[in-house]
Amino acid sequence: MTTPSSDEPIASDAEIARTAEKTPIEDVVAPLGLEPKDLEPYGDHVVKLAPETTHELTNRGAADARYVLVTGMTPTPRGEGKTVTNVGLAQAFDRLGKSAVAAVREPSLGPVFGIKGGAAGGGYSQVLPMEDINLHFTGDLHAITSAHNLISATLDNHVHQGNDEGIDVTEVVWPRAIDANDRALRELVVGLGGSTNGKPREGGFVLTAASELMAVLCLADSVADLKERIGRIVVAYDVDDEPVTVDDLGVTGAVAVLLKDAFQPNVVGTIEGTPAFVHGGPFANIAHGTNSIVADKIGGALADYVVTEAGFGADLGAEKFFDIVAPAADLQPAAATLVVSVRALKCHGKDMWPVEFDALEEPDVEAVRAGFENLDRHVSVLQKYGVPVVVAVNRFPGDTDEEVDAILEHCHDDLDVRAAESTVHRDGGEGGIDLAEAIDAAIDAHDDEFSPLYEQDAPVEEKIRTVATEVYGADSVTFTADARDDLERLERVDLETAPVCLSKTPYSFSDDSSKNGAPEGWELTVRELRPSAGAGFVVALTGDVLTMPGLPSEPAALEMDLEDDGTVTGLF
Amino acid sequence: MTTPSSDEPIASDAEIARTAEKTPIEDVVAPLGLEPKDLEPYGDHVVKLAPETTHELTNRGAADARYVLVTGMTPTPRGEGKTVTNVGLAQAFDRLGKSAVAAVREPSLGPVFGIKGGAAGGGYSQVLPMEDINLHFTGDLHAITSAHNLISATLDNHVHQGNDEGIDVTEVVWPRAIDANDRALRELVVGLGGSTNGKPREGGFVLTAASELMAVLCLADSVADLKERIGRIVVAYDVDDEPVTVDDLGVTGAVAVLLKDAFQPNVVGTIEGTPAFVHGGPFANIAHGTNSIVADKIGGALADYVVTEAGFGADLGAEKFFDIVAPAADLQPAAATLVVSVRALKCHGKDMWPVEFDALEEPDVEAVRAGFENLDRHVSVLQKYGVPVVVAVNRFPGDTDEEVDAILEHCHDDLDVRAAESTVHRDGGEGGIDLAEAIDAAIDAHDDEFSPLYEQDAPVEEKIRTVATEVYGADSVTFTADARDDLERLERVDLETAPVCLSKTPYSFSDDSSKNGAPEGWELTVRELRPSAGAGFVVALTGDVLTMPGLPSEPAALEMDLEDDGTVTGLF
Repeated sequence: MTTPSSDEPIASDAEIARTAEKTPIEDVVAPLGLEPKDLEPYGDHVVKLAPETTHELTNRGAADARYVLVTGMTPTPRGEGKTVTNVGLAQAFDRLGKSAVAAVREPSLGPVFGIKGGAAGGGYSQVLPMEDINLHFTGDLHAITSAHNLISATLDNHVHQGNDEGIDVTEVVWPRAIDANDRALRELVVGLGGSTNGKPREGGFVLTAASELMAVLCLADSVADLKERIGRIVVAYDVDDEPVTVDDLGVTGAVAVLLKDAFQPNVVGTIEGTPAFVHGGPFANIAHGTNSIVADKIGGALADYVVTEAGFGADLGAEKFFDIVAPAADLQPAAATLVVSVRALKCHGKDMWPVEFDALEEPDVEAVRAGFENLDRHVSVLQKYGVPVVVAVNRFPGDTDEEVDAILEHCHDDLDVRAAESTVHRDGGEGGIDLAEAIDAAIDAHDDEFSPLYEQDAPVEEKIRTVATEVYGADSVTFTADARDDLERLERVDLETAPVCLSKTPYSFSDDSSKNGAPEGWELTVRELRPSAGAGFVVALTGDVLTMPGLPSEPAALEMDLEDDGTVTGLF
Repeated sequence: MTTPSSDEPIASDAEIARTAEKTPIEDVVAPLGLEPKDLEPYGDHVVKLAPETTHELTNRGAADARYVLVTGMTPTPRGEGKTVTNVGLAQAFDRLGKSAVAAVREPSLGPVFGIKGGAAGGGYSQVLPMEDINLHFTGDLHAITSAHNLISATLDNHVHQGNDEGIDVTEVVWPRAIDANDRALRELVVGLGGSTNGKPREGGFVLTAASELMAVLCLADSVADLKERIGRIVVAYDVDDEPVTVDDLGVTGAVAVLLKDAFQPNVVGTIEGTPAFVHGGPFANIAHGTNSIVADKIGGALADYVVTEAGFGADLGAEKFFDIVAPAADLQPAAATLVVSVRALKCHGKDMWPVEFDALEEPDVEAVRAGFENLDRHVSVLQKYGVPVVVAVNRFPGDTDEEVDAILEHCHDDLDVRAAESTVHRDGGEGGIDLAEAIDAAIDAHDDEFSPLYEQDAPVEEKIRTVATEVYGADSVTFTADARDDLERLERVDLETAPVCLSKTPYSFSDDSSKNGAPEGWELTVRELRPSAGAGFVVALTGDVLTMPGLPSEPAALEMDLEDDGTVTGLF
């Protein structure tokens, strides 16, 4: 086991990114068989796949590819390193001579300028160019924002111009969207200032990552499918309580036009030159939280290993990948790796909420052990899907050998699952070799078959109960009166047996962030169901859901600067 | 004189664009001396200049370049063809063996989806690829939107987090911005829903083209200048009535980071392969209405002819180019060409408002002649700046030889200015040869020197009076009580002697759209002054100014579609 000296500081992510020698993108993708005609360049280090290539490869099939899902234990609000593990693991497979790609989500500008940190991995396991990926990148999120707001403007214009569809302005369910953390836009009244400014009504903005169009883009597997999904999105109800769709507004085509380029997946290189798809970034609570199906499919068509990730812990992210994404994409996940950290285990062991990070810095192997119950439940949840599980201990500076070894031993001895330390942040792909080999061995030794948790044709209520009890560990589920009404009204939009997308706090298995470990004897309350007819699932809301973050008192933006020569500083 | 049969239909702009064989962008820019290292590709037909190239060329100087400003008579709401003339004229110079570039503004998404029509020229004088340029292009407008809204979110967050600067929420002068035509966002109340959502206050959105950041981006000539301008933008006043700036909010650097790529000019090819800078697109009433200074400067450093345009008629656009842009950029305009149309002359001659386009289709040489007073005043305004003026008669299908000849004769015989018919829409550069030769001859024969209309150090009130009387033909100017207050408060922001940017209807020389021709005996009322400290000018508002358009009853979006193979239809 490699145990690098944990006190030695390494350079910042930004420094590492800036000083890295980037492999030209044509060389990054050449081993996948992609040629210049397949690529649309965005500078020297980023490409989109051309439309014809996107179409052809999405349909090629990926029968033999090993899909490895990177998921995690219940995280602290700072995250336990799924993306860095994802990128590092792809690099590790690459070093082992396998053909591998990473598939990760696109960062959202709002959080980048809010709470310091991006979603491009870190250290020697990040995707490059870091500045581009964390800023405007290839414009996909901007395209989704524009397309989303075209629907909004058309809807209010429809009402203003005579309201032929009879839209009930108190039943508009399509918000506006913006890729900025701006709490003042959560709830507002639009259309003020007299009749030339439209009809006043209550409204609000969501972060672009929470737009149903983001989910739609990530689930569509062809232009035709994209248009079909856009067209059936429900934006409001009319005075007869019938749904009004984007098709009814007449702008399905225009919305698709705005999403034309965004639909083509982006490919970049990791810091070690391993190809990485960075495409789509839906929220992992009110949406499914994984990169695009197109990227997954194409990755599998071109490489032997596709390492991809799902947002938050396994209860939220892996569940959605297995129950929503894999069936929609017709993918067979080969394995799941559960990212755990000494820090998060201590947090659960100390039963700490809110998290005081300073208090987690001292070595404390007993606290780590006390946190195992959270790890254990995640492992058992993943095993229900019939996939082999390998625990990845993502080592942070300051973690002691004793702490890390305690976790590895627990996995081997008590759980009988493979586990490996990962030092990909510090060591790049080399730091993920043990993990990659453990995953490969687990897949080879495994003889069960992947299957989703619930039957596709079960009613929504039953699906919710299944997830709540089997995954979250709830004793029971109650539906508020509103949620009951919503259940009955799913028929209106043909979603009575759709997959369910449960929105819940990521900081506990339960619906209460302060409940650490593996809470038992609790009841899940569903307070609202939102049909996402375009995405094809029903969002079940439990507790408060924030679809528009706010800025903290010291936003990350305050640290950023642009030097006269164009160098970006303070981004990380 | 070439007089093509005016009844023969030509293909639509979109068809022409789609079937055109596009010159690879490296070949387009090679004659300018630009090499691959100078370029950042965005697909095969669009580049941005690299940061170092942008920096070096902006500072190289353009002593010998001939800057030709394309401006126009008072237009109808459909426009009389300045952009098509701009592109066609650059192509014509190119055909004459001169080194020439076109410099035009970037279209805004909002209008593209609202009222049919883009801003990329038309027919055989357009810039390509048309779909890209009219949709997301290289993301410049999205970057400005994001940067603008980062300031907005930071401002409300500042108030929410304790309001150290003492911002008076009733004196916030920084709106939010969006690149969509959405009248419901003109006036709204944000921050509703309780204290976690910030403090309620009145607000509104402007179209991105109306953002002060757009003006700033177009006027800055270096990254350092960009940052200085961003930092001094006034976003609100505090409880002591002192200005609060972006620097005070601490996000100057972060805003510059978001504008990093947008600052680098875009270059594409015209349909004939002539290089065209397409960069920046500020409104021509509340801002200065021309493409970026960086594009103008670099164009002049690389080519012998830079053909550029200013928004609306000469009263609004040329005035601002000559009095704001040229001094700021230290440019010497060599000539102005005034685009006129039979249609617009008839409209003025018939004293028609609102414009009934069907009624302008019949040949009517008397109505054309009756409209000459509008043309004449524009010529005399342009001559006040010491530049030679050449009238360009932009021929539309349906215009008769008699009508066109009447205009040419009037210019030659009555005004003693050169004039030429232009058929660049139908004939490409070939249709602009006469015009190009007339412009060249006019420059060669001219011995006056360009000078702005007013002294740079004159007080704002005097500058407004100068523009109102000398350019608009007003008898006098009155300031409302509010405007008087604003005048006195300009000292707070050090703009007492700044250039003035008058916002007025483009459909009349006067502040009343219904007054055609060359109205006399009227008084201009200034109702508000808005300091644009970042842009470095004072906006004087007269009449109602719409900074956020609405969608029409049948938005252009309804016609658009994306075919399964990725072809965009209905964009034009």
